[in-house]
Amino acid sequence: MRAIAVDLGGTHATVAIVEDRNILESEVLSLGSGHGLASVLPLLCESSKRLLLKSATDLHSVNGFALSFCGLTDSAARRVLSTNSKYDDAPGLDLQAWCKRELGLPFRIENDARMALLGECYAGAGRGQTDVVMITLGTGIGGAAMMHGQLVVGKHILGGNLCGHLPVVFNGRRCTCGAIGCAEAEAAGWSLPQIAKEWPGFAESELASKPEVNFRELFGCASAGDRVSVELRDRCLHIWASLSVGLIHAYDPEIIIIGGGVMQSADVIVPYIQQYVNQYSWTPWGKVQIRAAELENRAGLLGAIPLLAQL
Amino acid sequence: MRAIAVDLGGTHATVAIVEDRNILESEVLSLGSGHGLASVLPLLCESSKRLLLKSATDLHSVNGFALSFCGLTDSAARRVLSTNSKYDDAPGLDLQAWCKRELGLPFRIENDARMALLGECYAGAGRGQTDVVMITLGTGIGGAAMMHGQLVVGKHILGGNLCGHLPVVFNGRRCTCGAIGCAEAEAAGWSLPQIAKEWPGFAESELASKPEVNFRELFGCASAGDRVSVELRDRCLHIWASLSVGLIHAYDPEIIIIGGGVMQSADVIVPYIQQYVNQYSWTPWGKVQIRAAELENRAGLLGAIPLLAQL
Repeated sequence: MRAIAVDLGGTHATVAIVEDRNILESEVLSLGSGHGLASVLPLLCESSKRLLLKSATDLHSVNGFALSFCGLTDSAARRVLSTNSKYDDAPGLDLQAWCKRELGLPFRIENDARMALLGECYAGAGRGQTDVVMITLGTGIGGAAMMHGQLVVGKHILGGNLCGHLPVVFNGRRCTCGAIGCAEAEAAGWSLPQIAKEWPGFAESELASKPEVNFRELFGCASAGDRVSVELRDRCLHIWASLSVGLIHAYDPEIIIIGGGVMQSADVIVPYIQQYVNQYSWTPWGKVQIRAAELENRAGLLGAIPLLAQL
Repeated sequence: MRAIAVDLGGTHATVAIVEDRNILESEVLSLGSGHGLASVLPLLCESSKRLLLKSATDLHSVNGFALSFCGLTDSAARRVLSTNSKYDDAPGLDLQAWCKRELGLPFRIENDARMALLGECYAGAGRGQTDVVMITLGTGIGGAAMMHGQLVVGKHILGGNLCGHLPVVFNGRRCTCGAIGCAEAEAAGWSLPQIAKEWPGFAESELASKPEVNFRELFGCASAGDRVSVELRDRCLHIWASLSVGLIHAYDPEIIIIGGGVMQSADVIVPYIQQYVNQYSWTPWGKVQIRAAELENRAGLLGAIPLLAQL
């Protein structure tokens, strides 16, 4: 099966020609910011044609065009549902008609977190699995869930996407989502500097001497034995592990896939969460496996094949 | 549509003849405890026949026999999956064959929490809804979820049933389920006395003078202005509300139905949780409605009709 796959982020788009589990050709387009999607579509079309040529792929052999989008999508209606200050014109565009007109291909769209999960289940850490939760630890905590081989969608298309927003401290910090004590508000890239600043002894810590408080510096300083960094890192690990238990209890998965920039420290994170989940989750049938994501940025592209296979 | 419906608890069974949203006749059987299910089956059969007579219902007009069971069930296989010291012989019984032989009826079985949700969605607080979470606040916190009109089941048939076991205090109390800081460990009937005993000022409180620390006494003393009781009650309300936000973020429902003995104080509980959810859950589409369960013990019986309708 072949697809034109586009992973559209806020400032960049990756366009690829995908054949089953392989990316034949791909390129990254710099889009700047503040553009509407309408002005980006011609670039995606040109790039697609360029890559078809480069990979010697006949357009007629391509099964469809799949767009991984950085916002909420109504996949059944093949539309963008809502955006968050990126591509605000997108909900008004008939992307299916555009795709038919310009490329003559079936069009599919899915939210980027769900596309990454589809990709990992097709060609990465979740290969062969039907019941999977994926969380992405980064500036925020993204997520998606699959049950019985189907993406969890929900009545308002939010199902599974708010994995990072289960409250783990009922009386904790206000989250950017509006809720209180979400895992994201207690242990994600944006909240880490605030939490660090209030930590006893932070001002005198190694971490405070770094130009920026982020997970890379945190894990580095913790490895070097900095007390405050060890405490903060362990609190983050504990929160991610507790969140994992909550997600297991909610979605009853076989595996949890963890991705995101912080997985540069997967050697610390995966064993910690695995051990915690083994000890503290209620799974009389056995143990949920914790796995690092394998595909990185390719997940959203390789998700194109299972998305189109649902045609 | 007509059903013989049985709601089987640990020490009692309610047997009923149900016609659509009405219970024509019912009776409660005292079973004592420590019995196997095999010895209970003849009693259920006799009772069914007695109630058919009493309600002047022809056995041939009955669509099936539906069992609401106090343990994990594999509904697709029509079997009990596992029990918790109640009816330990049940997983070995071929209930479908028994039902066919004794009554000549199709047999369906479902876990009691899911049956209560089915009942409420068919004839109670969730009538007409397709995306619903139900939590039952009692000795523990039970739960079930429905998405797109289908019960959430999950790979290992635990999906939705562990609603009370989302961690809301990541570093909190050990739960009987083995996890840490579950809503149930922090605010349910069994954990309340432990939490109360450790509360500053408890020994001198009105609540301490009661023969038992339970939700009835807690809400009573709080209404009377007892400081410790107000603090403890407000903590419970806060935890239930935070759990509700977590469940909204997990399952993306339209409504949450709350049942259980503590709902004698629904006039306090429902407005509190509704206001909290309005303020703190991330639902750009609108507001999740919080509703009190309406059917009490009848929910599990009336769930028989939608369960059999899936035939």
